[in-house]
Amino acid sequence: MSTTLDRVLDHIDASFDASLERLKTLLRVPSVSTDPAHAGDVQACAELTADLLRQAGLDATVHTTPGHPMVVATGGNPDGHHVLYYGHYDVQPADPIELWDTAPFEPTIAGEGDERRIVCRGAADDKGQLMMFVEAMRAWHEVGGGMPLRITVLLEGEEESGSPSLDPFLQEHCDMLRPDVCIVSDTGMWNRQTPAITTMLRGLVYLDVKLSGPSHDLHSGMYGGAVVNPLNELTRILGGLHDNDGRITVEGFYDGVRDPASAKQWATLDFDEAAFLDSAGLQQSTGEANRTVLERIWSRPTLDINGICGGYTGEGAKTVIAAEGRAKVSCRLVPGQDPQCIEAALIAHFETRTPPGCTWAIQGHGCNPAIEVETDSPWLRGAVDALGTEFDNDTVLCGCGGSIPVVGSFQSILGAQSLLVGFGLDDDRVHSPNEKFDLICLHKGIRSHAAIAEALAHVGATAT
Amino acid sequence: MSTTLDRVLDHIDASFDASLERLKTLLRVPSVSTDPAHAGDVQACAELTADLLRQAGLDATVHTTPGHPMVVATGGNPDGHHVLYYGHYDVQPADPIELWDTAPFEPTIAGEGDERRIVCRGAADDKGQLMMFVEAMRAWHEVGGGMPLRITVLLEGEEESGSPSLDPFLQEHCDMLRPDVCIVSDTGMWNRQTPAITTMLRGLVYLDVKLSGPSHDLHSGMYGGAVVNPLNELTRILGGLHDNDGRITVEGFYDGVRDPASAKQWATLDFDEAAFLDSAGLQQSTGEANRTVLERIWSRPTLDINGICGGYTGEGAKTVIAAEGRAKVSCRLVPGQDPQCIEAALIAHFETRTPPGCTWAIQGHGCNPAIEVETDSPWLRGAVDALGTEFDNDTVLCGCGGSIPVVGSFQSILGAQSLLVGFGLDDDRVHSPNEKFDLICLHKGIRSHAAIAEALAHVGATAT
Repeated sequence: MSTTLDRVLDHIDASFDASLERLKTLLRVPSVSTDPAHAGDVQACAELTADLLRQAGLDATVHTTPGHPMVVATGGNPDGHHVLYYGHYDVQPADPIELWDTAPFEPTIAGEGDERRIVCRGAADDKGQLMMFVEAMRAWHEVGGGMPLRITVLLEGEEESGSPSLDPFLQEHCDMLRPDVCIVSDTGMWNRQTPAITTMLRGLVYLDVKLSGPSHDLHSGMYGGAVVNPLNELTRILGGLHDNDGRITVEGFYDGVRDPASAKQWATLDFDEAAFLDSAGLQQSTGEANRTVLERIWSRPTLDINGICGGYTGEGAKTVIAAEGRAKVSCRLVPGQDPQCIEAALIAHFETRTPPGCTWAIQGHGCNPAIEVETDSPWLRGAVDALGTEFDNDTVLCGCGGSIPVVGSFQSILGAQSLLVGFGLDDDRVHSPNEKFDLICLHKGIRSHAAIAEALAHVGATAT
Repeated sequence: MSTTLDRVLDHIDASFDASLERLKTLLRVPSVSTDPAHAGDVQACAELTADLLRQAGLDATVHTTPGHPMVVATGGNPDGHHVLYYGHYDVQPADPIELWDTAPFEPTIAGEGDERRIVCRGAADDKGQLMMFVEAMRAWHEVGGGMPLRITVLLEGEEESGSPSLDPFLQEHCDMLRPDVCIVSDTGMWNRQTPAITTMLRGLVYLDVKLSGPSHDLHSGMYGGAVVNPLNELTRILGGLHDNDGRITVEGFYDGVRDPASAKQWATLDFDEAAFLDSAGLQQSTGEANRTVLERIWSRPTLDINGICGGYTGEGAKTVIAAEGRAKVSCRLVPGQDPQCIEAALIAHFETRTPPGCTWAIQGHGCNPAIEVETDSPWLRGAVDALGTEFDNDTVLCGCGGSIPVVGSFQSILGAQSLLVGFGLDDDRVHSPNEKFDLICLHKGIRSHAAIAEALAHVGATAT
């Protein structure tokens, strides 16, 4: 470990309170990208983020896109390896607001000692995580002579909305951006004492489906039993998407799906299944028969109904046959599945089951393949070494149930692999009320990013 | 026909515009009984209704109940047969308001000539219908020396909320109320030229079900495939409530269900199936296999999902596994089915299918048996004769897919049969946006009620 890094790490420790305050200012901006009412907040957040990057010693520009702005910052050592850091400054909506213990956009510190956490929408996903490398860069700038790598930071404002502007932006600027490797900090630790690098991500297909039948809501006495009821039909069709073994019944769904080689090792990981389920308030795992929990979330594809509505849902009783019903349905994909094929098969599944007198209106909201990252790379090994200096426990190489489509875009457009090094925890309640980020993870994450920068700077150099 | 009745009928014709204006004043009061915010309107509507009854020559009282007021009016010929007229002055909610062409509580005349109709929530169900007999009584009072029957009018304010105060009120006042026969004007004509008397009503069981699993909404990447998804499970269970022949799969559901003797004649009725379906915007009937449309709505039990909601239903995509899902489910019952047994069987159907880690919260909102009215009665024959003087086409004796629990209460508590004589039409859009009542039906209905009163007054008298 070089003495420069030591100075940087000490500075990080000394500045932690200030780092936390800067994170809070970022969290206070309700940058909800899916909601047009917050477009101004998203813009303001982009500006604030650019300003924090400038304070961290980089040149930052807020780029206009057809959607929300792209913040791009550059700096560091122009002769070093080029590393692109990615994050997103937009956040999920806060609803249902009534289930938050504190105001969703007023960052609040809860807990005591090592259990202290910051509670706010975006605390983990993704502002807490992006601020870890921004603060690491700031520390390198303030006491380390600047980052030892050539840095590009790319922060988008549409990750929670399907990132429509990202690929065009990458294509337009790929020569400027083309890095040696990317760092994406949107995943989690193995547990509070054990870091992780994610090497597998699931893909995503998301559909909005509406089934319409009668021309208007009907009286269920006058018409019930003699006319099609779109809610009866919609639940029948949605309910038939899984068989009794928890397998999805869409034709060809499992074509190309295989068990990854790494799956054999997963049983040796000390995966705390009880804690994982407990974080969801459950005691048992439910899913595809004869599959472990890790297989179910890392290597098996899924289908989930994310939302459904139709008819009368207020207080009391209304004897109505609704004219239409709507649902949001999404699939997590694994390597071997082609998202366009899956989307087409799912749509065909619905359309071949169209009840008499009904019509579908189906809209897609995302179509991204699963991603496998090379585990045999010097970048990954460097990051693992750096994490080894910060944590007693060895870094776990793991899968991830979620989807980060940008990693696929970096592969296909920029030709670069990504290091998925994140410091979130399973119980962070991302996408839920009372989202939080543990302060100890934030602190260790800033330190780790500083150490990783040093390690990556030495990739390819003669071993010392 | 007596000259008194002729005078009454002529007066009805001459006063029709005034009758229509009085109906409009009643319609303007948004007497939505299911919504506590409209409690004041419901009270005001009771007062207005009592006032209209007093103007019609009756003594009217607004009775307080634990719920909404009961309006009771008496009058007419104290020595005549005692007929109890029933109606309800409360109405369904107007939502979804955005689908109304005109303001839901501002009565608007639409159409031309014989097609003219009044559009307003409550126009058909039930204010237009109750005003027909109130205006008939008024005409008898103004030019006929008063109604030829001993009259009790009973108007409740909770029919759309399950009538919780009705049975206790009937029990408390049964000696005062006990009529020879009741008249209920909440059903429809066979078509615009053909009157109908309804002799069969379906029963109703209504449940609100909520299925909860995880302790909070979950990220569908992090947890998807490994944990129970209440929306996946709820749709599976709801979707399994019908088999491929459209029969309900609840155990014992069809026990006691038989084909009524009258069903054989239904095929001879000139039922305009195409018009019935067209009124729902459909071209074909969907339901239990090997059953005619009339069987499906008059003599076969049903199950309909009236509403469903859960998860994210806003714009765009949110990759969530919802902590819970809710649905409203109701069954229309036929003679032979015990509503308490059906409710228990439906609850058991859900509870025996409880997914691991989930719990149900189930609330009942109504439990009423089907009703068959005696077709061989002098009251019914008298009403048929009266209708024969007003319409060229013979009166059809028909079933009704809907439920009117008060008819069962009149049978069990007051020991009286009901004449179900109504003047609504299939396309009135009751319980839907743009509810309407044809002015020609209103006018013919007032005249018909006046004639029926004369006919019932002569029941048991020597034939003239």
